[in-house]
Amino acid sequence: MSPIDTLHPILVDGRWIRAGAPTGRFRAVDPSTKRELGGRGYPVSDWPDLEAMLAAGRRAAADMARLPAGRIADFLDTYAGAIEARAAELVETAHRETGLPTEPRLRNVELPRTSGQLRQAAQAARDGGWSRPTIDTAAGIRSVHGPLGGPVLVFGPNNFPFAFNGIAGGDFAAAIAAGNPVIAKAHPGHPGTSALLAEAALASAEATGLPAGAVQMFFHADVGLGLRLAADPAVAAVAFTGSRAAGMALKAAADKAGKPVYVEMSSVNPVFVLAGALRERGTAIANELHASCAMGAGQFCTKPGLAVLAPGGHAEAFVEALRHLTAAAAPGVLLTPRSPQAVADAVARLRSAGADLLAGGGIADAAAGHAFQPTLLRVSGRRFLEDPVALQSEAFGPVCLLVAADSTEQLPRIAEAMEGNLTAAVYSDTGGADDETYDALERILRPRVGRLLNDRMPTGVAVSAAMNHGGPFPSTGHPGFTAVGFPAAAIRFSALHCYDNVRHHRLPPSLRDHNPTGALLRWIDGEWTTRDA
Amino acid sequence: MSPIDTLHPILVDGRWIRAGAPTGRFRAVDPSTKRELGGRGYPVSDWPDLEAMLAAGRRAAADMARLPAGRIADFLDTYAGAIEARAAELVETAHRETGLPTEPRLRNVELPRTSGQLRQAAQAARDGGWSRPTIDTAAGIRSVHGPLGGPVLVFGPNNFPFAFNGIAGGDFAAAIAAGNPVIAKAHPGHPGTSALLAEAALASAEATGLPAGAVQMFFHADVGLGLRLAADPAVAAVAFTGSRAAGMALKAAADKAGKPVYVEMSSVNPVFVLAGALRERGTAIANELHASCAMGAGQFCTKPGLAVLAPGGHAEAFVEALRHLTAAAAPGVLLTPRSPQAVADAVARLRSAGADLLAGGGIADAAAGHAFQPTLLRVSGRRFLEDPVALQSEAFGPVCLLVAADSTEQLPRIAEAMEGNLTAAVYSDTGGADDETYDALERILRPRVGRLLNDRMPTGVAVSAAMNHGGPFPSTGHPGFTAVGFPAAAIRFSALHCYDNVRHHRLPPSLRDHNPTGALLRWIDGEWTTRDA
Repeated sequence: MSPIDTLHPILVDGRWIRAGAPTGRFRAVDPSTKRELGGRGYPVSDWPDLEAMLAAGRRAAADMARLPAGRIADFLDTYAGAIEARAAELVETAHRETGLPTEPRLRNVELPRTSGQLRQAAQAARDGGWSRPTIDTAAGIRSVHGPLGGPVLVFGPNNFPFAFNGIAGGDFAAAIAAGNPVIAKAHPGHPGTSALLAEAALASAEATGLPAGAVQMFFHADVGLGLRLAADPAVAAVAFTGSRAAGMALKAAADKAGKPVYVEMSSVNPVFVLAGALRERGTAIANELHASCAMGAGQFCTKPGLAVLAPGGHAEAFVEALRHLTAAAAPGVLLTPRSPQAVADAVARLRSAGADLLAGGGIADAAAGHAFQPTLLRVSGRRFLEDPVALQSEAFGPVCLLVAADSTEQLPRIAEAMEGNLTAAVYSDTGGADDETYDALERILRPRVGRLLNDRMPTGVAVSAAMNHGGPFPSTGHPGFTAVGFPAAAIRFSALHCYDNVRHHRLPPSLRDHNPTGALLRWIDGEWTTRDA
Repeated sequence: MSPIDTLHPILVDGRWIRAGAPTGRFRAVDPSTKRELGGRGYPVSDWPDLEAMLAAGRRAAADMARLPAGRIADFLDTYAGAIEARAAELVETAHRETGLPTEPRLRNVELPRTSGQLRQAAQAARDGGWSRPTIDTAAGIRSVHGPLGGPVLVFGPNNFPFAFNGIAGGDFAAAIAAGNPVIAKAHPGHPGTSALLAEAALASAEATGLPAGAVQMFFHADVGLGLRLAADPAVAAVAFTGSRAAGMALKAAADKAGKPVYVEMSSVNPVFVLAGALRERGTAIANELHASCAMGAGQFCTKPGLAVLAPGGHAEAFVEALRHLTAAAAPGVLLTPRSPQAVADAVARLRSAGADLLAGGGIADAAAGHAFQPTLLRVSGRRFLEDPVALQSEAFGPVCLLVAADSTEQLPRIAEAMEGNLTAAVYSDTGGADDETYDALERILRPRVGRLLNDRMPTGVAVSAAMNHGGPFPSTGHPGFTAVGFPAAAIRFSALHCYDNVRHHRLPPSLRDHNPTGALLRWIDGEWTTRDA
């Protein structure tokens, strides 16, 4: 392990500086070989590092609040371009650190998604529509959503080294678009990737005149310090994507300190396959389910981890088809050294709650990398209803649990036992044979999920204004917000700024009588309009 | 005290029923005479009462989710009319229970505000614009804000028997407009008023075909049961207006259970009077401040409890004018038997933190009712900065603390010591002499308050689409939301319902290709429009 003076520096207040007295250090690991990667190690920061970032973040927040929206948009656009310019290096580094395939995943899907997301955020910042300027001329009251007044703390997950990275992903883009600085915690699963992104972010911030401290990053800190950071008065909001245990701890710390916190935690994303659909196209749906579950070695927050099958002989054929597909599939590489055991633990929980193993089930030892066998389990509807909490344990890997309903009447009861999820999907007969069952399920599932799908698997989260990548607790902490999709994602990181009888020249440009761009949509005296007030 | 069988019934699942085995009972008190009022006593409910309301609320939520928006709007309009039809009885009862003046306050201001609020909520429900329907035709994804899937628990405060009543006020109207049932906890300070309102609500719900359980109310429960209720899985969200201690406890319970919670707690609403304004019109501002502070005997969440004066001789004249006004004012009636002592405790906290008493300061014993002397305190800026937390203790009564700044440079430091507040006001010279100081203060105050005022006192919260009756913690729990003003208030009680590839006939009307009203504004493929998709 490298001595302290060769550890990678952290990004504080516009400069890469040596971490002060790190409490530990670590190296990146290539999960496809289980070997530590060369180059510099990374520091585990102590409190003074974080304190310096808080102070710089506060200053940056005050400065960013005065910047024209176009400047923030310029930064986001420039950063998107910088990521594309360094695509080769980023893809190579991310591949080594995560084992995710270079193509198409990293190069053709995730990297363009990330730069595209930044450009959508730029567009939202530039046109200002996300901020909902509202003018009541009779009352003399005007309001608009604006920045929070402090840095937003963003914790990225292990499974998207670009698109959900704390220093480049959706939460980062949304927080910046709303005018806030970001303090990012890199995920230790891909520190080199995060460092490259942070370099690009810093260069873009400098090129576009963002204040020092607008983008900051550290690599790691002990759990207690992370919670202390989340609760610090200088932090304006917290965003997190990851495990339920970590999300719940962060949420508790931030809640207690009274600050907005957005956690995206766990979800089994149930897929219901109704009788008519099983009869009509069971094999095709089995293929879809297998592909969706195997994608990214099952390490997506929207992986369908649970499928509920209507009863009957076609269900048995479906199970058999899926069992063959699963047994024949090669294990994909998992993201971290801890991943195989974590998946094994989840499978053990499902089995001890009564699920039978149909295929796979073990840590894959044939491959050189961290891996787990593609795994299929099965449980009856009756057994599921006896222990629905344990049988909804998320296995973050290539694992799917089939719930074979004992009767059609049981389907709604199974749906009622579902926790809050990001998504649910229902496959039904195209001719309408399942419509009655669909209606009964829809009533139950609608308030339990963020995104309801028909005849489509939940993996693949389009960056669309209509997307909801969110859902009821415990999938997230608030069912009214999405982490993906602009302009909606930006509003999470804003405060409602109301001006009552404030003199006209003191108002922000978006609230003055004259429409600042001519195209800004504002709610003036009861109508959305681009006219002057 | 009345025996159990003469206690007022509670409203459960569409019927007035006797509380089962109440854990206690209480009577309404006339605070202007300190005497218990006649008529029936009111029950303190035990858990089975609340459990029955939860079950009914869940059923009602499922049914309300299927109602056309027009039906909910009809209910809100009908209820507004019913309140106006029973205005005489309501005003008389509220006056007896709260001591608030019949005219203009209750009859001419608060009651019309309440019915007007319900009609604004009806309008929001009818036109549906609050729900932000969003359609992405290329991706096949559509989303709209919809009800939460369970009842919303609303706790009203003591100081607005109509406009913030749990069964009739802003949170009630917003929760219903978003399609949710409400379980209201009446405030024990005005149980008879709440019962009359609940009768009108029930009759209106029946007349417009809302499900039984859409509007329910209980009168009281022990603190522990209130917290258990807030954390119950059947409750979809919690809204509270009241003291910081109670709000924090409720917020903690709801946060832990992972549900949206909106608490409006405490605020001292600082007013800054700059040097030019003091010189130009100090006496006029002193009069305004006195009137704003005395209004409702100082029992408004937007009462200016703290005024910061720029240094100089004009500040001394201002203090003197205010001292005269305060000393000459008659004590108003406070809302509850506990109010005088609570105000006395707050004044004691301010004094022990170094504030000097200039006028008043004691419980008013001359009047027959619960009252506190109009009170003025003063502290230097230097002393304030030594203990800013204690010196921001809210006194919920006719109490104002003047902070006399020692220098102009000290003003921003005083502003920086401010906690999150609902409002801040700045009075400045009309000629521009204070503009530099204003700019410095605005930068600091903007992220610390929801509503920033110029040359206007904060009391009087207009029901405007541009209003923000909210603010950063600890004034509320989230700075992005307002409790007053439609359509924004409704969005708090909604989930984002996303439909991905869902068959067209299964979409809610607001997301189908055809615009259901022809006038519903929807975000379709990147523009707000009323056209069909």
